[in-house]
Amino acid sequence: MNVHYKIELKNFEAKIKQRAKTFIGYPAGMDYNYEELYPLMQYSLNNVGDPFVESGDMQTKGFEREVVAFFADLFRAPKNNNWGYVTGGGSEGNLYALYLARELYPQGMVYYSEATHYSVQKNVHLLGMESIVIRAKENGEMDYEDLRETVQLHRHRPVIVLANIGTTMTEAKDDVPQIRDILKSFAIKSSYIHCDAALAGTYLPLLGYDSFDFSHGADSVAISGHKFIGSPITCGVVVVKKSYKDRIGRTISYIGSLDTTISGSRNGITPLFLWYALKKWGKEGLLKKAADCLSVAAFAEERLKSIGVNAWRNPLALTVVFPKPAEAICQKWQLASEGEWAHLICMPGITPGHIEDFARDLREQREQEVSTFALQNVQTN
Amino acid sequence: MNVHYKIELKNFEAKIKQRAKTFIGYPAGMDYNYEELYPLMQYSLNNVGDPFVESGDMQTKGFEREVVAFFADLFRAPKNNNWGYVTGGGSEGNLYALYLARELYPQGMVYYSEATHYSVQKNVHLLGMESIVIRAKENGEMDYEDLRETVQLHRHRPVIVLANIGTTMTEAKDDVPQIRDILKSFAIKSSYIHCDAALAGTYLPLLGYDSFDFSHGADSVAISGHKFIGSPITCGVVVVKKSYKDRIGRTISYIGSLDTTISGSRNGITPLFLWYALKKWGKEGLLKKAADCLSVAAFAEERLKSIGVNAWRNPLALTVVFPKPAEAICQKWQLASEGEWAHLICMPGITPGHIEDFARDLREQREQEVSTFALQNVQTN
Repeated sequence: MNVHYKIELKNFEAKIKQRAKTFIGYPAGMDYNYEELYPLMQYSLNNVGDPFVESGDMQTKGFEREVVAFFADLFRAPKNNNWGYVTGGGSEGNLYALYLARELYPQGMVYYSEATHYSVQKNVHLLGMESIVIRAKENGEMDYEDLRETVQLHRHRPVIVLANIGTTMTEAKDDVPQIRDILKSFAIKSSYIHCDAALAGTYLPLLGYDSFDFSHGADSVAISGHKFIGSPITCGVVVVKKSYKDRIGRTISYIGSLDTTISGSRNGITPLFLWYALKKWGKEGLLKKAADCLSVAAFAEERLKSIGVNAWRNPLALTVVFPKPAEAICQKWQLASEGEWAHLICMPGITPGHIEDFARDLREQREQEVSTFALQNVQTN
Repeated sequence: MNVHYKIELKNFEAKIKQRAKTFIGYPAGMDYNYEELYPLMQYSLNNVGDPFVESGDMQTKGFEREVVAFFADLFRAPKNNNWGYVTGGGSEGNLYALYLARELYPQGMVYYSEATHYSVQKNVHLLGMESIVIRAKENGEMDYEDLRETVQLHRHRPVIVLANIGTTMTEAKDDVPQIRDILKSFAIKSSYIHCDAALAGTYLPLLGYDSFDFSHGADSVAISGHKFIGSPITCGVVVVKKSYKDRIGRTISYIGSLDTTISGSRNGITPLFLWYALKKWGKEGLLKKAADCLSVAAFAEERLKSIGVNAWRNPLALTVVFPKPAEAICQKWQLASEGEWAHLICMPGITPGHIEDFARDLREQREQEVSTFALQNVQTN
């Protein structure tokens, strides 16, 4: 029997186990444990179609609805006018929201800042929408003056704004009330604000920051499930106003459900993962996690500064930004970088120990650079 | 400590275990076992971006490329001009292919038969494309005469055909060579044929039916992974001509990869599942599975006929179509139905035992109906 593939698998597992120890550059929570749910992975659970319309028994829509309800509550969505589903990830949530916005305002112009996740531009293109990229300030937040001036030039068109609640590089937050004020100042009646809260949407409300929620003017919010909560299978949640969703659903007799989601078949496991995590931790447990992460982030910023690294953070951010270090360090610690900057993200599972080790590597690297530089100077002289 | 949710979970598991025993109406292979891979589910493996461009170490792109290569070979895609990725399911594959087709032919008209999966209409709408629905013959296959006449009326526009390789209800197969001939007869140079082979794409070539592959004129083929191969997490594979794909990719510095897929983050586990299944079974094992399924389907058709049920199948189909039985039977056996018809699908894991039990239920139901009818007649007289 061919067992070569089993050896290949074992080798891969050993490598991943090793590499997971220095994985601080991407937002993947790592303290989850879904072993208790593995027995359910022998079944093909499929939440095809609308989670609020049943479809046979081999699905987890009841659990999914509880997950949606948790986030609808967290984001203060209108009590009797909210809807949502568990997506395959943050970008599906954004695509869905932009799709809704386009159906509501086919002539709408989409505005988003230059610090926006790259997938948004693709989604806008996919949907055949027109968009204008707004300048971002140095911290990654939308330049509201630029938004104001740009919207003013296009007052004849409905406005669709994609606000970032935690940009990819610096975890900057666009201010929804300010955006609403701008739209109001131009008497724009047809508008839609979607919040891409993939990274920060779960922990910010727990930490008392809620200025991106429905009560502050959002029409939809999308989060990513494999980030703060953590999941081995990418997933997310999108919450929208139910009245908007109702405009795009069509009844499909084959599945006996409503075709209101982007994907047709949707796995039933990730809704269970999220449900399990929410039940296990509860709001209090998640708040404690968030506070712990925030402490680690504050520590990381201080620690890097203490060795002379120009590190900084946005308010309430778990992302610590610093000048891109040598390639070997980026490789080992799997840092994400853009231009001159790199970052680390203090997701659940990242400990002060990780930060200490990283800071040590960084210091050694810098000392090496200094001595190489000194040596070169000696040789030159 | 709150353990209520653990009880809820146990109850759900018990229910699913029971319901899985009479799950014959939807195409979900059920004989898989990925336990050996569960240890990898403690890591957040993410195949973000293009599978042919590496992105850090916490990913399974090497395995994914092997999966794509298997299907590219199976579908006889051009040796040095193929590309693909593991999708979240069949409908993402279709969306991706239609997206490619639109980028190649922005003025293209999409044609697909009325027996096409409901998600295609949504995808076409999402992409803002124009489409015409072609009549289907009684067996669910595209009415080529209708296609011919319709294309003739729109000869000024590029033609994009979505061909079904196994329709949802009757597992009918649209004939790609015939479609190509029609396009050729009108001297149409700008054309694109995508094969939605979600259900049957994996086993048909093994059984010697290949008239939907690249060598017969397909430009892309999408399959579903959670159907014939089986997976607890919905997934699929899309294979396209690389030259087409290259037109839509954009380099994204953040992920250090190419943004050539629909979803951004993609889980690294389902590519591993598919890789593992392909390695474990090999082409021979999969062929044996396919032949076994075909035997069960032939048996089911015969068995139902033997009790007076008007059952039928398309050639090489694992789907057995029959008049929709009483609601209680549809509920118990989780049958899919459309109008007057229902079906069962002999996926791996469905045994002659299942068919026997189902036939017994069906016969009892019919006998009951007859006696009720007789009783009513007695009472009426």
